[in-house]
Amino acid sequence: MEYFHVRFFRKITPSLVGLNHPKLNIMTVQTLPFSNLIEIDRRSATPVFRQIANGLMNLIRSGKLRPGYQLPASREMAGMMKLNRTTIVAAYEELRIQGWTEVVGKKGMFVSKQLPVINPKTFKAAALDGSVSSEKPDFYRQVSFTRPPFQELKPYQLIINDGYPDQRIAPLNSIFNRYKALLSRAYLHGMLMTGNSAGSLALRTELAAFLSKTRALSIGSENVLVTHGAQLAIFTAASMVLKPGSRVIVGDLNYVLADKLFEQLGATLIKVKVDQHGMDVDEVERICNDSRPDLLYIIPHHHHPTTVTLSAERRMKLLDLIRRYKLPVIEDDYDYDFHYENSPILPLASADHQGYVLYIGSISKTLAPTIRLGYLIGSEDFIWQASKLKQLVEIRGDVLFEESVAQLFSTGEMQRHIRRSVKLYRQRRDQFCDLLAASIGDMAHFTVPQGGMAVWTTFDMEYSIPELSKRLAVKGIYMNDGSLYRYNNDVNGIRLGFASLTDEEVLKFTKALKEVK
Amino acid sequence: MEYFHVRFFRKITPSLVGLNHPKLNIMTVQTLPFSNLIEIDRRSATPVFRQIANGLMNLIRSGKLRPGYQLPASREMAGMMKLNRTTIVAAYEELRIQGWTEVVGKKGMFVSKQLPVINPKTFKAAALDGSVSSEKPDFYRQVSFTRPPFQELKPYQLIINDGYPDQRIAPLNSIFNRYKALLSRAYLHGMLMTGNSAGSLALRTELAAFLSKTRALSIGSENVLVTHGAQLAIFTAASMVLKPGSRVIVGDLNYVLADKLFEQLGATLIKVKVDQHGMDVDEVERICNDSRPDLLYIIPHHHHPTTVTLSAERRMKLLDLIRRYKLPVIEDDYDYDFHYENSPILPLASADHQGYVLYIGSISKTLAPTIRLGYLIGSEDFIWQASKLKQLVEIRGDVLFEESVAQLFSTGEMQRHIRRSVKLYRQRRDQFCDLLAASIGDMAHFTVPQGGMAVWTTFDMEYSIPELSKRLAVKGIYMNDGSLYRYNNDVNGIRLGFASLTDEEVLKFTKALKEVK
Repeated sequence: MEYFHVRFFRKITPSLVGLNHPKLNIMTVQTLPFSNLIEIDRRSATPVFRQIANGLMNLIRSGKLRPGYQLPASREMAGMMKLNRTTIVAAYEELRIQGWTEVVGKKGMFVSKQLPVINPKTFKAAALDGSVSSEKPDFYRQVSFTRPPFQELKPYQLIINDGYPDQRIAPLNSIFNRYKALLSRAYLHGMLMTGNSAGSLALRTELAAFLSKTRALSIGSENVLVTHGAQLAIFTAASMVLKPGSRVIVGDLNYVLADKLFEQLGATLIKVKVDQHGMDVDEVERICNDSRPDLLYIIPHHHHPTTVTLSAERRMKLLDLIRRYKLPVIEDDYDYDFHYENSPILPLASADHQGYVLYIGSISKTLAPTIRLGYLIGSEDFIWQASKLKQLVEIRGDVLFEESVAQLFSTGEMQRHIRRSVKLYRQRRDQFCDLLAASIGDMAHFTVPQGGMAVWTTFDMEYSIPELSKRLAVKGIYMNDGSLYRYNNDVNGIRLGFASLTDEEVLKFTKALKEVK
Repeated sequence: MEYFHVRFFRKITPSLVGLNHPKLNIMTVQTLPFSNLIEIDRRSATPVFRQIANGLMNLIRSGKLRPGYQLPASREMAGMMKLNRTTIVAAYEELRIQGWTEVVGKKGMFVSKQLPVINPKTFKAAALDGSVSSEKPDFYRQVSFTRPPFQELKPYQLIINDGYPDQRIAPLNSIFNRYKALLSRAYLHGMLMTGNSAGSLALRTELAAFLSKTRALSIGSENVLVTHGAQLAIFTAASMVLKPGSRVIVGDLNYVLADKLFEQLGATLIKVKVDQHGMDVDEVERICNDSRPDLLYIIPHHHHPTTVTLSAERRMKLLDLIRRYKLPVIEDDYDYDFHYENSPILPLASADHQGYVLYIGSISKTLAPTIRLGYLIGSEDFIWQASKLKQLVEIRGDVLFEESVAQLFSTGEMQRHIRRSVKLYRQRRDQFCDLLAASIGDMAHFTVPQGGMAVWTTFDMEYSIPELSKRLAVKGIYMNDGSLYRYNNDVNGIRLGFASLTDEEVLKFTKALKEVK
């Protein structure tokens, strides 16, 4: 059924809104008579005389009516258009007021001679038509490819993501009920106008308390910047530190969108091997000895994509390096709360780092990918500066939404949701890994992750993940083709998200895997 | 009453969440006995044995327990902590598994000697304590001041913004009802995972149709990038075009956050006078003759802050310059839909610009400042590149939210809301201007704006707007002090937003103005 839902939804929309309706094509009509050139939509909100005026303006601006062109007398035009003359008079008056035309004595109305002459060409033609590709603008940069941004929802019956929560169990309704309740609060009328680019005070206060309690950060609201998703937190932190030519240490492998972002900001990547104990800290020390890099980006807990965790020993060494070399660090701890064995490793940011560790987390990973909320933790001055930078990027977030999520924390509903999720995701992880081993254990390799929402699965180099992905698509199952990770030549792996899959969905997927492998 | 609502809301939150609770201060406790060093919260979600383990880890990591330190025997520790011994055994096991401690034969458990020695210092101390300010990190940039990002909601009874819609009349409930309905759609489970960084197809399709109809852009969904507020659209467009050292033509005056953003991106501003007919286009031509700038940013319709509109003649000349010099332009048309005299001026983007005009609009200005939605219009290739850049900044928006807003367009509710708003805001504008003239007409100067949501009001240079702002604050009325615009020495003006004020609120404000002026 989903299949049809989706097709219906996607296919119908365009015609619903009349995108292909002739009335929208005024500027591309090629015939000459005004009655054809200017189409009138009587159901439109725009009064008919304005539709006429706008139509004539378009003809002037598209060069179809040139400066000095005499418009038909209003009576004539009324006849052509089959409209009341007073309507035409009003339209002509509109044109005159706006300076498009001028009345010359008794002669009549002319397209203003002050307007320069132009040759017809439309936006689309210039921008998109191959025939004028010689004129194709080149004033903007090309952005290196990450993943298809235009990836639309295909009519898949099952989608295997690379590590998202199951929004079906998230208390999203509470958020929106809360939001609607807040809308009715008179005093909020003012709050909307004076929103804080660092995020609502209530949410920053709740987050400070939550992070202090779960991650021993001992911070206050002044150390918290709320962002529209954790990616914006990485962007903000990196933009505060990097300039063109900066050098950044990253893991090899690493979260691809972080690598691409740093490169976009003009930085050079220094790749340091990641093994089963996390990033090779001794290599980091050698690099710092040569010359101190401008930034180190690390995911010490449930590393992306491999899910390995930095060992206690390396973590302590890294903290020592941070202090000795005053090495700025972005610690991306996107799914700290989802740890299934013993207890999660406390972040670098909770130790003594003298203000050099910028800590990043995600609320999207806790609730649902549709909820775009993340946070950046730093010293009070850093957060103050970063909030000014953020203001230039998006002014602020949705204050009411942030207040609503804050309520989720203060009522304890968020904490209960996390406990429920951890319990459920641990079961899902175990079932998923059992069935995965049973279906493709002979050709794929993975270790059961201690936390997070995905299993890092690698295949023998000769095995084609894109081929596997194609075969699954035939069965209505979407699984990415691993190209996200293949930028590294000796990697043939993929992250398989288990957290968002029900038992039946896991069965369906692993069964299909076995059939198509 | 609002007054108390606000105070209550703001003051209570922190203690509600126990931010100042001793349990959160583990790392700063100075006494030595473990029973004081490690506090147990029996109501906490975290099992007691983990609280013990975490407490001990903190002590190790903060340097209070050094490598080689022997932990008390589990029985001893159990006595000190007044806990069951099995709990302590579990905590010690936790420490050993994580590599913080090692068991040496029968001797007992020691803090691992592989961990380097550190001297106690906390995050906060290093980052915020003046006493170590010599160590204050300087690895990040200072961001030039725009407006106070930390401006919290004061207990004002009335807030005069600089031009926002009245969210009290916006169909926000429809959006959230729609959102909640979408949450229950099974097939959306997949959509959430495969959201498009350019924005949901439904919203891009609706916007393309709406903009084609109201602004004669003749575009398709492939020309639309949906952004988290119009500011992000400006940021994205500018980031696609500018590099450090680029030259940007801006109006004098201009929208401050655009100027600051371009400077933040490393560009130099070339300021061109704005008079009652808009930007001086002849000056733009002189500049292009010298050497072509990299970008021109213009608000031709309801210029910010002055609300003037670019004349038809200058608009045509500018289009000619754009074509002749292949001059990239960002056209910021943030409140096109709110025009009250004759009909709005069609944007530059609707004319022949050969793909050099990037068109920006805002949905926040149509609905409410809390709704963070804007859009960027460009050629298909430009939007494709920009969507990849946007992906690095925030991955994507809230797909369900975008789908919900798309529904507002397809049902025509958005169009009806705009018609209602224009009618209401026109009345509010007229009443506001009448009463403003009556109350401070003797000292302030303004022209009734043809559109938009604010009146640009200037005062004689010797008159102090900050002083006026202070006096209004005493009466519980917030009005910004004009510092936003005073960066230009011969300007002593302020934007007074009328659209969001009811008749009573306008009366209250203008009455107060008269009393305190």
